[in-house]
Amino acid sequence: MYSAPSIQKLLDELERLPGIGPKSAQRMAYWILNADRATAMRLSEAIAEVKDTVHFCSRCFNYAEDDLCEICASSKRDASILCVVSEPRDIPPIERTAVFSGVYHVLGGALSPMEGIGPDDLHIADLMKRLAAEPIEEVVLATNPNVEGETTAAYLARLIKPLGIKVTRLASGLPVGGDLEFADEVTLGRSLENRQVL
Amino acid sequence: MYSAPSIQKLLDELERLPGIGPKSAQRMAYWILNADRATAMRLSEAIAEVKDTVHFCSRCFNYAEDDLCEICASSKRDASILCVVSEPRDIPPIERTAVFSGVYHVLGGALSPMEGIGPDDLHIADLMKRLAAEPIEEVVLATNPNVEGETTAAYLARLIKPLGIKVTRLASGLPVGGDLEFADEVTLGRSLENRQVL
Repeated sequence: MYSAPSIQKLLDELERLPGIGPKSAQRMAYWILNADRATAMRLSEAIAEVKDTVHFCSRCFNYAEDDLCEICASSKRDASILCVVSEPRDIPPIERTAVFSGVYHVLGGALSPMEGIGPDDLHIADLMKRLAAEPIEEVVLATNPNVEGETTAAYLARLIKPLGIKVTRLASGLPVGGDLEFADEVTLGRSLENRQVL
Repeated sequence: MYSAPSIQKLLDELERLPGIGPKSAQRMAYWILNADRATAMRLSEAIAEVKDTVHFCSRCFNYAEDDLCEICASSKRDASILCVVSEPRDIPPIERTAVFSGVYHVLGGALSPMEGIGPDDLHIADLMKRLAAEPIEEVVLATNPNVEGETTAAYLARLIKPLGIKVTRLASGLPVGGDLEFADEVTLGRSLENRQVL
């Protein structure tokens, strides 16, 4: 169909990307074809570079370029409070809030009997080792507010509470700036149960 | 924000792509981070490869890997009918119809006084040279059915007709499978003007 096999190859590779169908892949391919060489090569090299330099932090399993990620390596973080998340991608949104200054632990997923993901498939043993070795006073369970995330949080709470460490969970409730009228009933119910004294 | 500068760099490069905002770039970046190395490198290399191997066909200005594009190099194409398009990207949709077996000429744009694009900015002189040198009996003007495309087609028709070469234009009308009810009035008007005897 395309008069250059290398264009077809590029289209095939672009279509593998999440959320990219044939039309978007075509738009991206023509953009790359029309871009000046330096711009296109920066994209090509940025892809190669993350595969060469990014691995998992040896302590918290966040993405890292060195042995420790930038958060674990920082002296400015409060090592007494640890936030547990499912994936490295959950860390940037929490950092953007500027409300949390502790450290993280990435589980690498969430418990899911449906998908056959059990405790041994997650970095839970590593978490327990950290709780024994580090001066952690509070664990914030920041797994997603869905079935797998809640299951994982409940499982971890049962494991950690007996160690005498404070265990907390992200609050559920109405999104700030949201409309009561359009809130789903589960969220609205949760925000009633968790109502705050003013 | 990201614990690895190379991830931020990848995000910046992905966001340059057309139709890709911060959220899509993030999804793509995490996909690349989670992909196995070989898959990610195929994408990286496919981008580099098109920049290294693809240039313009010396005859028709389509994308090509050799001196001539695959269509110009093919002995199976009818050299007596030439289809004029604005961009290389207009050729694959025409090829997919399997209705046209002639050759192409890519203008590299369309006339646009608004954007300061005149005849000298397009491959029009090259087209006239081809019409003088090649055994072309019909020119199909397949520029887009918008203001710039129509202007370009009218301009070329005035240039080519005096050479005694048949000049045709893509038909405008209702899309096949479309609804009369939802057709815009310009398209419906055009399909009435161009009505066919059955």
